[in-house]
Amino acid sequence: MNRLLICFLLVVAQLTYADDGYRLWLKYDPIANTSQRDAYSRSAQFIAANKTSPIIKSATDELQMGLQGLLGKSVPVLTGAGNRTGGILLEVTANTPEINEEGYRIAKRQNNIVISAKTDAGVLYGAFALLRHLQTGQPIEQLTLASSPKVKLRMLNHWDNPNGTIERGYAGGSLWKWYELPETIDPRYKDYARANASLGINGTVVNNVNASPRLLTGEYLQKVAALADVFRPYGIKVYLSVYFAAPKTLGDRTRPGLKTSDPLDPQVRQWWADKTKEIHQYIPDFGGFLVKANSEGEPGPQDYGRTHADGANMLAEAMKPYNGVVIWRAFVYKADPKADRFKAAYEEFTPLDGQFDPKVIVQVKNGPIDFQPREPFSPLFGNMPKTPLGIEFQLTQEYLGFATHLVYEAPLFKECLDADTYVKGKGSTVAKVVDGSLHGYTHTLMAGVANTGSDRNWTGHPMAQSNWYAFGRLAWDHTLTSEVIADEWVKMTLTREPTAVKRITNLLLKSRDIYVDYNTPMGLSRPWAGVHFAPEPWQSKSPRPDWTAVYYHRADSIGIGFDRTASGSNALAQYQPEVRQQWANPETCPLPYLLWFHHVPWTKKLSTGRSLWDELCTRFYTGADSVRWMQQEWTQVKPAIDPVFHADVAGRLATQQREAIWWRDAWVLYLQEYARQPIPAPFKKPDRTLEDVKQLVNIYLMR
Amino acid sequence: MNRLLICFLLVVAQLTYADDGYRLWLKYDPIANTSQRDAYSRSAQFIAANKTSPIIKSATDELQMGLQGLLGKSVPVLTGAGNRTGGILLEVTANTPEINEEGYRIAKRQNNIVISAKTDAGVLYGAFALLRHLQTGQPIEQLTLASSPKVKLRMLNHWDNPNGTIERGYAGGSLWKWYELPETIDPRYKDYARANASLGINGTVVNNVNASPRLLTGEYLQKVAALADVFRPYGIKVYLSVYFAAPKTLGDRTRPGLKTSDPLDPQVRQWWADKTKEIHQYIPDFGGFLVKANSEGEPGPQDYGRTHADGANMLAEAMKPYNGVVIWRAFVYKADPKADRFKAAYEEFTPLDGQFDPKVIVQVKNGPIDFQPREPFSPLFGNMPKTPLGIEFQLTQEYLGFATHLVYEAPLFKECLDADTYVKGKGSTVAKVVDGSLHGYTHTLMAGVANTGSDRNWTGHPMAQSNWYAFGRLAWDHTLTSEVIADEWVKMTLTREPTAVKRITNLLLKSRDIYVDYNTPMGLSRPWAGVHFAPEPWQSKSPRPDWTAVYYHRADSIGIGFDRTASGSNALAQYQPEVRQQWANPETCPLPYLLWFHHVPWTKKLSTGRSLWDELCTRFYTGADSVRWMQQEWTQVKPAIDPVFHADVAGRLATQQREAIWWRDAWVLYLQEYARQPIPAPFKKPDRTLEDVKQLVNIYLMR
Repeated sequence: MNRLLICFLLVVAQLTYADDGYRLWLKYDPIANTSQRDAYSRSAQFIAANKTSPIIKSATDELQMGLQGLLGKSVPVLTGAGNRTGGILLEVTANTPEINEEGYRIAKRQNNIVISAKTDAGVLYGAFALLRHLQTGQPIEQLTLASSPKVKLRMLNHWDNPNGTIERGYAGGSLWKWYELPETIDPRYKDYARANASLGINGTVVNNVNASPRLLTGEYLQKVAALADVFRPYGIKVYLSVYFAAPKTLGDRTRPGLKTSDPLDPQVRQWWADKTKEIHQYIPDFGGFLVKANSEGEPGPQDYGRTHADGANMLAEAMKPYNGVVIWRAFVYKADPKADRFKAAYEEFTPLDGQFDPKVIVQVKNGPIDFQPREPFSPLFGNMPKTPLGIEFQLTQEYLGFATHLVYEAPLFKECLDADTYVKGKGSTVAKVVDGSLHGYTHTLMAGVANTGSDRNWTGHPMAQSNWYAFGRLAWDHTLTSEVIADEWVKMTLTREPTAVKRITNLLLKSRDIYVDYNTPMGLSRPWAGVHFAPEPWQSKSPRPDWTAVYYHRADSIGIGFDRTASGSNALAQYQPEVRQQWANPETCPLPYLLWFHHVPWTKKLSTGRSLWDELCTRFYTGADSVRWMQQEWTQVKPAIDPVFHADVAGRLATQQREAIWWRDAWVLYLQEYARQPIPAPFKKPDRTLEDVKQLVNIYLMR
Repeated sequence: MNRLLICFLLVVAQLTYADDGYRLWLKYDPIANTSQRDAYSRSAQFIAANKTSPIIKSATDELQMGLQGLLGKSVPVLTGAGNRTGGILLEVTANTPEINEEGYRIAKRQNNIVISAKTDAGVLYGAFALLRHLQTGQPIEQLTLASSPKVKLRMLNHWDNPNGTIERGYAGGSLWKWYELPETIDPRYKDYARANASLGINGTVVNNVNASPRLLTGEYLQKVAALADVFRPYGIKVYLSVYFAAPKTLGDRTRPGLKTSDPLDPQVRQWWADKTKEIHQYIPDFGGFLVKANSEGEPGPQDYGRTHADGANMLAEAMKPYNGVVIWRAFVYKADPKADRFKAAYEEFTPLDGQFDPKVIVQVKNGPIDFQPREPFSPLFGNMPKTPLGIEFQLTQEYLGFATHLVYEAPLFKECLDADTYVKGKGSTVAKVVDGSLHGYTHTLMAGVANTGSDRNWTGHPMAQSNWYAFGRLAWDHTLTSEVIADEWVKMTLTREPTAVKRITNLLLKSRDIYVDYNTPMGLSRPWAGVHFAPEPWQSKSPRPDWTAVYYHRADSIGIGFDRTASGSNALAQYQPEVRQQWANPETCPLPYLLWFHHVPWTKKLSTGRSLWDELCTRFYTGADSVRWMQQEWTQVKPAIDPVFHADVAGRLATQQREAIWWRDAWVLYLQEYARQPIPAPFKKPDRTLEDVKQLVNIYLMR
């Protein structure tokens, strides 16, 4: 290539390239510090692996691409290293006692950097770990890293529909272009796999839990298989959400559909056995099924008087000849106005403990209700010792401000994982339930409901990339702190300028509490109606009582909050005594959970020295004000951030600011009608009426 | 910037850059031919304009960016050229008698290239014309170009909904991120404006004609205004589709909604006057309203016993103080099983000719039904001499195979524009009706229903970019040929390699006839049910007879086709005698329109020498076979095309091939039940049964 053409290309690159967020944290931009770059370069003169395979090729490809970007030089991949030194060796070897099947070890050996693992996938994870090490600017002179995933199935759940929409998606449409598959392979599928593999995510459920039977037809299985073919070299297995009534809906070539989907019916069992076999013909390493049954109108075994275990075990039987698993969701609640939705999953599932096939994992949402900005941990954790329980987090911001609110979710995930269930005494954290160490589960699972979509930057809000990142890192190692993860992500994604890194990390760490303050402080929850976008704490009409807002906050002239003590629904009885006793007493119950468990008088004096009403107002106001602080902090870091990326986030922060005030005004004006007290100084009364605020939602109700 | 960093950047650029189609035809890649590049460079040493304005700045920015890419050098923009020569001068001047308000003239003057126009917008269009001239590799030594748009309003209609979906969109979701506006401005909005301006498109209706009243709220008007601010420097005005019942639905701050939307009600008239005023406070240069009324369930003036003219004139009155127009769609048809939908628009609108306010334009779809792959021209053209008629084409491939069929639409547009209505004798083409030259319309309009979406490449099928391009070029100058436009587009978008250009242009030109052959040959139409994706010529049940497939083809044991002669619906009476006489006689009716107008016996011998049945089969089979030819042609041009772009199109062609056979099999197996004749040699009977083929659609009917 001649010099002139190089210059042309450079100019073109500059003209057409701005940081649109597409590259996520896999941004292999040149390392500016020349001495550091030189040091890295000396240790990365070649790449060699002791075997070949598609996954090993992914590892060497990624190292080559990453090093080319970071170091600005082409690093050769050698078929054998011989006696050469100064390179990177990849070796699959059984001689790695300190790590598990998917773990990796990185160490210096005879002036080479050696990435060792028991499996090809372990090597791939090690390659990404090494790149992360360089991207975050760490020294490699005395490099020793060893890490093993604590959970076996680290998985994204995509609530993507075959028509291209995403349920609760705020980043465009589905990544999967069903109409174009299997013939057209969007290059994005590979980049999706790369991003997941870089975190150690090894499974993906490609379709919505409110599942279409379409995905089980031969036509769509071919499409799914095409995706599986792209993901396989990155160690990622494909799973499918299944529609429990599929035998009735689909039938097969000879039968137009069975008369029943009863899990104990032999024809139905045969149908699933045949279908599972068919799936494996398309996807030999199929990961398994995910099932939402008898929940929110979905069909399930209870339609035939059978239990969740009957349903799950039928699928497990069909899966017996294969390696796949059956993941059965515990997200169930009946439309009973007298019941407490909080208690439903525990009541339905704990009696079934011990009845599930060993291939079954029960997937439990982190909290007892539904992905609220803050929830206490689900009381199922620890209370099904004979049944592997996976945890389900929601990355997509259904209740966390869609794509216009900046909320870093690692503190939310950690709050749950680090919570102590006390089921086997102090230290029985949710994390230990989930990683299997508490009860010795065979299968372990952490699932995140994906926040990805077709938006160029993958996640709508560019900063929401951090939530995908944080989920993946915690699924690998739940002992990592929110701060460490944020620091890594910022350095890899945004900037390595130390002051900016510190400032952005601090902003991320505070963002969730800020959101909770203006949105659902002190244990409030679900102040939404049909439109999750708009505050409607006043909403009281719905086909189901537990789909109203008033069901959750129960405000009246005395006070506010849901009494879940013995004098109320007694949901607290589902927790161990140590937990229960602390939370049952309003004096010892942590303020963030207060209104989850207690109906508290407006005038009640709290540990903060303020009355409940004054405390709530304080939170709503300071929460909304804190968004201004976030805006200021973001302005401060402008010189260190790509201008396009910076402008995008700045725009969204401005929207968040406007919407935070909307939330604040909706809450205080509405609750004031019950509390009948003034807004406490120094806060100023909203400059609009409750009626004004109530009108706003109507805009979103128009078609 | 040091040399090393340049190399780094270059490497990064190479790593991260592939031709993903985002740049459309505005691809300013370096010109490889050095002598040509040098010649261009000598004539482009600087840019200078005789005035400043946002639109002029867009012109100089684009020239600067384009020249930097094409020539690989930074071309300075001077505030004044003085006596310098060898540059590009932009001048707004009244001294341009040969062009109209928005036209441009490009000529050499004292060794400068001078772009002259009466308006800033004209200069902008001239700048793009000059860039196109260079991009297509034409000589500039004796440069003289002069061009004026033949139609005043050149406009895209976006059927985008506020929830982010697009009705009949096959390229992802809406470009407009309503939840993020007005604070976050996607950089894509500007690139959208650049692409339109490069074609001379000067208006955009941002929301669906099945309109949400949301867009008329203050909250959304702020968002629309933010878009208008981005588009304005590119000479593009924003229009809104309006919901006719908005006065009832919306009300205002003091009224929760009026009791009526009757266009003759004074309160309603005042409401629209107030709303129009409010819109102009946000968007001072607002383009106007587009209305779909009393059509397919939309509200309209007929709900109150008023006419379309009453409705349109009310809006025109509200618009009186401003420059905007009212565009009223003529797409109406009643659910009458005895009526011929073909005749409906003519019957409803021709009696209103002369009753519309001068601000009103009636927008007529190119054909009498609904954007079929081939339709005769709408008989409205020429028959409303006192009412400006705009034409509406559909770029999005609702009936042209979504995003998996390659159909270049210019021949479809041209077929209609060049059709002779004979209303003022021979040569009274549809184009002359539309450009106003036939009847002296004040306002002239060409609208295209956009095929753009959030997909990275804008149009889903990358080759569908050509349809956006062709529409814009024809809206500017309907005398351009399909071939010239294809040649330009290929050179700007894909390759300048002469053999490949020729091959791809040929493929484009044939693509629409190929599609028609396997889909709806010889005047068949609308073989769809609810799922436009799947062939269902057998579909006979619907809430409306004119929403079934059998309504359109009328196949029976005798023959097939819709008798629209005097013995049938007599729709032909809506055309001038010259047209009518030719089409009413099955012997002289062109074969492509035969079944539009005649119910023809299966055994009827045609001018091709074949019976109707044999001819239909021949078209279905050769149409499907021709997709293989397209695949072969595309394989041939591989060396000349970016590999990512090539692979994308190759994948879609493979899908098209599979689906073309689906169409063929559906038609021949279904029609064979009526025709009761064998598939003629040399074609082979489909290897599946009609029942098999009928099952396929069921997949798409599942949620």
